[in-house]
This record gives sequence, C-alpha cells and structure tokens, in this order.
Amino acid sequence: MASRTPSPTAARPERNPAPGPAAPDPAGASASERPRRRLSVDERREQLIAVALELFSLRPPEEVSIDDIAAAAGASRPLVYHYFPGKQALYEESLRRAGRELAGRFEEPAEGPLSERLHRVMGRYLDFVQSHGPGFAALLRGGSVAASAGTSAVIDEVRQAAHEQILSHLAIPDPSPGLRLTVRAWIANAEITSLEWLAERSLPLEELQLHLVQEFVASLVLTAAREPALAAELASFFADERPDGPTGRLVQDLAGLLAAPGIAEAVTALATPAPGEPSPQATD
Amino acid sequence: MASRTPSPTAARPERNPAPGPAAPDPAGASASERPRRRLSVDERREQLIAVALELFSLRPPEEVSIDDIAAAAGASRPLVYHYFPGKQALYEESLRRAGRELAGRFEEPAEGPLSERLHRVMGRYLDFVQSHGPGFAALLRGGSVAASAGTSAVIDEVRQAAHEQILSHLAIPDPSPGLRLTVRAWIANAEITSLEWLAERSLPLEELQLHLVQEFVASLVLTAAREPALAAELASFFADERPDGPTGRLVQDLAGLLAAPGIAEAVTALATPAPGEPSPQATD
Repeated sequence: MASRTPSPTAARPERNPAPGPAAPDPAGASASERPRRRLSVDERREQLIAVALELFSLRPPEEVSIDDIAAAAGASRPLVYHYFPGKQALYEESLRRAGRELAGRFEEPAEGPLSERLHRVMGRYLDFVQSHGPGFAALLRGGSVAASAGTSAVIDEVRQAAHEQILSHLAIPDPSPGLRLTVRAWIANAEITSLEWLAERSLPLEELQLHLVQEFVASLVLTAAREPALAAELASFFADERPDGPTGRLVQDLAGLLAAPGIAEAVTALATPAPGEPSPQATD
Repeated sequence: MASRTPSPTAARPERNPAPGPAAPDPAGASASERPRRRLSVDERREQLIAVALELFSLRPPEEVSIDDIAAAAGASRPLVYHYFPGKQALYEESLRRAGRELAGRFEEPAEGPLSERLHRVMGRYLDFVQSHGPGFAALLRGGSVAASAGTSAVIDEVRQAAHEQILSHLAIPDPSPGLRLTVRAWIANAEITSLEWLAERSLPLEELQLHLVQEFVASLVLTAAREPALAAELASFFADERPDGPTGRLVQDLAGLLAAPGIAEAVTALATPAPGEPSPQATD
C-alpha cells in the first residue's frame, strides 16, 4: 500500500468480488445494500488509486482490467470510469503514488557512516522492489505497453530523487561531472540489478543489499582515483566507516582476495609502470 | 551509415532536396529526369533504410518525417509508403540495422589482455554512440514516442549480444548468477554513462572509454571477492594484464590513492575486523 497518508477505506474488508450491474452513482451503492458509510469523492478516488496500485504492483498493466479494479474496490465499472478516463490514467496515477512512496524511502538522516546509511536505504528500496516490483518491472525494462511520457516523467523523478539524496549525503559542495556520472551509473546498476533479481531471485536479498552498497563504495573510490578533489574527501569518508560495516567488510574481502597466491604477484607486477616507456597514465 | 554490406546507392550524391509532386511509380522517377539507373526493389528498400537510419541517428523520430526521408532519398512520399506502411515501421527497421551494426562492433578476437580487448570494443561502441546516439538516445532513456515491443526486442538483443561477448571473453565455463548480474549491471552502466555523456559531453570520450573498462575490472574484482570460484580465475586474468593497459593503470591509480595520508590509515583500520565481536562477514 503506497499511499503516504493511509487511506481509512482501502484496507477495509469490504471488497465485493462480484459487484452488481452498473451502478453509476458516484457516491457508491446505497447505504441499505451494505453496512458502510458513503465515501466522499476524495475518499473514493483515493480508495480506487490504492486498490489499483495494489493490483498494478502485482501484475503488469495488461493483466489488470478496469473490472478487476472495480471488483477489488467493491465498486462498479462505470463508477471507476467516473473518476478516471481509462486504465492508463489510473495506471499513471498509481505509478505516481508508487514513485512518491519510493522516493520517500530514500530519505535518511545524515548520521553515522555513509555506507551504513546507504545500506539502510537499500533495505527499504529492496523491500519496495519485492512488494511493488512485479507489476512495474516491465515499465522499467522499457517493454511495457503502458509506457508513456507520463510514466517516463515519474521514473525520471524517482531517479532524480535518488541522485539528489546521494549527493546530499556525500555533502561534496560542487560535485564534478565525473562524480555525477558515477552516481547516475550506480543508480542504473541498482535498478537493473534489482530487476534481474526479481526475475530470477538467484541470491538472498540481504546479499544484494550489501553488494549494491559495496559497489557504490567501489565506484566512489574509482572516481576518486581519477579526481584529486574527490580523493581529499575520501579520507574523511573512510575515517567514519566501521570495520563491521559494508565498507569495512569490503576492505577485508578485497584484502583477502588481493593477498591470494597468484593474484598478489600479478597485482604487484602491475603496480609498477612499464619501465623505459613514457607513462601513459593521464592525470587529467 | 550502419548497413554492414555497404549500400551502393545510399552514399551517392543524388539526393534531391526538393522532390517533385507525388510520383507513385515504385520504380522511381523516369530515367530521363535524372541520369541514374533504376534501383531494383531490394536496392530501393535498402537505400530507404540507409537514408532513414542516417536521419534517425541524428534526430529523435518525432523530428524526422516521411517527407524528410523521401527528400533525402530523392524519392517521393508515396514511394516511401509503397515500401513501408509508415514511419514507425521504417524507424524500427532502421533501429534493427543499427542494432545489428552495434552488435557487430562487440566482436573482438580472443587475443591479448582482457582489459585491452574491452578497451578496443568500447572505442568502437563509443564511436557508434557519437554517430548514432543522438537519435536513439530517447528510446534508450525510455521516453520515446517510438518505443514499442519491436524496439524493445532490438534493444534486448543488443544487450544480450554484449552480455554473451563478455562472458565468452571471460571464458569461465559456468558463469555464476552473481557474475551474470555483474555483467548485466556493467552493461547498464555503459549505456547510462554514454547517454549522459551524449547529453552533456562533460569529459573527453577517451576518458570515458578508459573509465568504463576500469569499472568493469573493478566490478569483476568485487564479484570475485564474494565468489571463491571466480577468485581462482582472477589470478590468470591479472597475470595476462600489462602495466600500461587499463588494468595496470587502474592498479597504479588505486595504489596511489590508497597510500595517500588519511586514507591509508583509515583503510588499514578497516582491514581489521572489529575486535571482540563475532565477525558479521558472511562467507556465503
């Protein structure tokens, strides 16, 4: 359920699986038919959106009909059409709510080690993917019949919210184009990785959560290796991290890997620039 | 020009910027009008596709009309419609050609250090992005009016081709789900990074090329840190790399960064698991 202000009606067990014939009264069925109060126009609209969001989260839009939504809302088909011109409008409104809910999950107090903050956010993000992803996955994959300028705008807004949250936690005054690219690319990584996970569920969600955070840390380090200004910020970032946090565990895993026989020798050989040649290593 | 078998007609300087009024003869204008031989049905079709591909590569589909294509091909509007039912069909066929051309650029002999092979492929990929990207960017971003099941299928095929090429170069017999995810996520990274680059061109293309390759190497190392089976493969991968190649330069840059004051101490502190606590480091 993605409405941020919980709808008092959506959760009620009043759903009517077999609504009677068309009842185009927008205020709902008569009070004598069922023991419930009439919903106000706003409440009814919110209820329809909440019900639609639930259905659209579970199944792709082509597998959800207006009749399904009407049935789940205990409403008639004409009543749904009274509020929304068609399925696409209801789908887009559901997606907009889902997007707002998701963007809300990105908010995190600016306290504690950065990788632990991101780890908490990713836990909430992956919960969302699990509960809402099945229905919206096709849209993100780009193959949905319901894709439109409206749906693209919502997706862009969510990506933008993620981008801004990350930059605000990094607290780097004037992020370079390279750092912005790194952040965007990592967001794409998180999207595609969670979509793949939804399709195959080939590893535990907690592992995915840790991996994505560690990949962000690694991307940040890689970017810092190219950008001296970011390198200076990296020292304080590392100083705040803890050995049992995602960054600490990454450092330990990498230290173990790079000390392994075969790898250690090869990496040591690579660490020395080729002798007698002008170094091709560009510093800017 | 993305046709793999060069069209003998598309490059000819015979384009007519102001074609006469509708000439619905599918074999083209009469021989007396212009000194050129008649195109066969197949040649004309190929020519129209080549011209459309060129226009669709430069501008988004909503900014290319059938009239533009007819004018650039020196053909009439009805003639274009004789071959293609409408703009969408021509757009999809152009995209299919572009996809095939792009997938062809992924092919690379299995010789030399892996990172240098990928570096060459990325050079060809980024050339393609530069020449064809402006028109197809909106499609990849997901906001194109021309998106359809057909365009999604083409994009998926190109991604799949990239995925298979990478796995074949890695030459790991039975790639784990984690490694497959890493490869897919890096492909998404390459896509989003090059789309962002197209929009902002905020750094030289050669830097982007090197960064993407180094990010792949880093992702591979990260995956190996979690997967002992891959770690064993990593030793031979590193052994083949050269100090002046992308991996060597990455190792040198990272060694420099991690030795910097502040960072070195913090990383050393993180490398030791927290004392007196059960290690939270999951090994599988």
